[in-house]
Amino acid sequence: MEFYRWKQDTDGPRLGEIRTPHGAVPTPVFMPVGTRGTVKGLTPEDLKSLGAGMVLANTYHLWLRPGADLIKAVGGLHRFMHWDGPLLTDSGGYQIFSLAPTREIREEGVDFQSHLDGSRHFLTPEGVMHIQEALGADIIMCLDECTPYPASREYVQGSMERTLSWAQRCQKAKTRKEQALFAIVQGGMFADLRRVCVERLVEMDFAGYALGGLSVGEPKEAMMEVAAESLPLLPEEKPRYVMGVGTPEDLVELAGMGADMFDCVLPTRNARNGMLFTSSGKIAIKNSQHREEDIPLDEHCICYTCKHYSRAYLRHLFMAKEILAYRLNTIHNLWYFLELMRQLRRAISAGTYEQFRVRFYQQRRVHSGS
Amino acid sequence: MEFYRWKQDTDGPRLGEIRTPHGAVPTPVFMPVGTRGTVKGLTPEDLKSLGAGMVLANTYHLWLRPGADLIKAVGGLHRFMHWDGPLLTDSGGYQIFSLAPTREIREEGVDFQSHLDGSRHFLTPEGVMHIQEALGADIIMCLDECTPYPASREYVQGSMERTLSWAQRCQKAKTRKEQALFAIVQGGMFADLRRVCVERLVEMDFAGYALGGLSVGEPKEAMMEVAAESLPLLPEEKPRYVMGVGTPEDLVELAGMGADMFDCVLPTRNARNGMLFTSSGKIAIKNSQHREEDIPLDEHCICYTCKHYSRAYLRHLFMAKEILAYRLNTIHNLWYFLELMRQLRRAISAGTYEQFRVRFYQQRRVHSGS
Repeated sequence: MEFYRWKQDTDGPRLGEIRTPHGAVPTPVFMPVGTRGTVKGLTPEDLKSLGAGMVLANTYHLWLRPGADLIKAVGGLHRFMHWDGPLLTDSGGYQIFSLAPTREIREEGVDFQSHLDGSRHFLTPEGVMHIQEALGADIIMCLDECTPYPASREYVQGSMERTLSWAQRCQKAKTRKEQALFAIVQGGMFADLRRVCVERLVEMDFAGYALGGLSVGEPKEAMMEVAAESLPLLPEEKPRYVMGVGTPEDLVELAGMGADMFDCVLPTRNARNGMLFTSSGKIAIKNSQHREEDIPLDEHCICYTCKHYSRAYLRHLFMAKEILAYRLNTIHNLWYFLELMRQLRRAISAGTYEQFRVRFYQQRRVHSGS
Repeated sequence: MEFYRWKQDTDGPRLGEIRTPHGAVPTPVFMPVGTRGTVKGLTPEDLKSLGAGMVLANTYHLWLRPGADLIKAVGGLHRFMHWDGPLLTDSGGYQIFSLAPTREIREEGVDFQSHLDGSRHFLTPEGVMHIQEALGADIIMCLDECTPYPASREYVQGSMERTLSWAQRCQKAKTRKEQALFAIVQGGMFADLRRVCVERLVEMDFAGYALGGLSVGEPKEAMMEVAAESLPLLPEEKPRYVMGVGTPEDLVELAGMGADMFDCVLPTRNARNGMLFTSSGKIAIKNSQHREEDIPLDEHCICYTCKHYSRAYLRHLFMAKEILAYRLNTIHNLWYFLELMRQLRRAISAGTYEQFRVRFYQQRRVHSGS
């Protein structure tokens, strides 16, 4: 992997490109989440037509089912899921934290129960490298402990030390040169611990750095504060990835602070729940006001869904639980997020990020009627 | 609607074309079923790329939800579902027979409960015409009583008489010239009653004729006997439609008897249940033997699914209940049916239907190992 920066304000928004063995993506980039090796309801061709550059898949889910060795045996995750573009796999740390019914974290690794069948599993940093090498993504992540919120300073410090020691073990265990290994910064909401974590990880020299342990229940301000303090500490010449984030507002704010990469289930999960993002705010498609609306979801949107279907039809499909509802809604929400990133990159490129940001919030205020 | 016959053996297979205000389709034609205004999981663009010519939608389902008046208000069913090709709506007779928890059939019409919420509804032949005119399909069907199997001769005769009287009332009630009205032949498994029904309907002069009340639990031989006796009685110059049928074997047999149109949920429903049609027989994708199979569903198939995905991936998606499983399986099964129809038409065109039929069964015998 290579990372080029085309444009950068000091401690401000950056424009760049991540080049991987499976192609290049412009940054800042939003990665749709393909949890189990599929972005729910969409084909890779759909993703390309939406302009998705890089896709994220979950190590935890794929390791439990169908298994990393199986995926390796049939040619790796790219081939398995028919996605020939850039691909990132996470380490499973977040899923163990959020999905496993029970878990015990030790220095050696983490012992946890599968959310699928309650079976017990043990994952080590070395094991996670082995799994991600079997999957074969272009960018792989170190195993981290996703620190819960709230947590005592003492707990957060111990957890951060563990994440550091695991990062070192991951680096040592990694064997495939064509894969880029990113480290994950932990440290909870403690600025000094985050700083120590960044410094020690940067010393180890990774291909990229991620902020982890955000969007875990903390107030939005706390998240933004951590990001604002941590992002400038990261090396300029490496991609900066804010994991599991976020809302459209988060993306605009964090890109403004110099973040390069994002992933979040928000657009895809909300789509399946009938919550749709539009230029005039969020729409709950099940609401009866949309029953006879012969207009697109968003009249300013040029996505496939908005070009060809009315709110009335989308509501009908959603109420009838038709499979096509999930697909059309996902197309629209992902288009909204990916189009926002395109506009953001254009603004950064033109040196008009601040104007873009002001307009972005103005538009929201106008439509929310305040 | 116009119907052209290009080729016809006496009482044998026919090759033709149905021309509607929304385009022409070659016959014999298999119509994918879009129950609630969507062929589950697929877009109209998907259907076109599969070569689907005409789509069927269900009056019963659309009338109950979201309602025919709503669909009319937003521009009719074509526009609502974004399908600009030929479209047929059935009359609801079959759904009232198969889905409604309770029903009472009277001369005036049928009183039944909705399977959605148990609410009571009353449908008359005139009402069904009104609904289908609101939906605006190119071909619409008379309200019939789908006679159950088994049933006494007395019951079948009364039921057939009612279907005849309802057909006349439908014809009288119909107002939109651009829609073609087809009548439905009933008469159970009694050859003489079917004959009487055909004769009386033909006297009334409809744009096309359907065989109804088949595939309702009768033995396959009974169905084939009824079809073999009834199809030749229908006017040569009108399309002949066998409703709700059938398996690949049924399509080959009935086309051989001069049937022009078919519809069935078999390929789409089986797809969602993981039962897939291949040139070497049916596959249950959940079976563990497919777990690591890095081969397409059907090595002789050139559909999107077979071109890009392995059985291992399709099994993974199906076991994980991923939405994409239903879509990829549906694409494959529909391609199988529509490709069978293309091969059938080519054989009829070349005058080699009999050879095609022999080869079709030979292939099956080889693969079933007998």
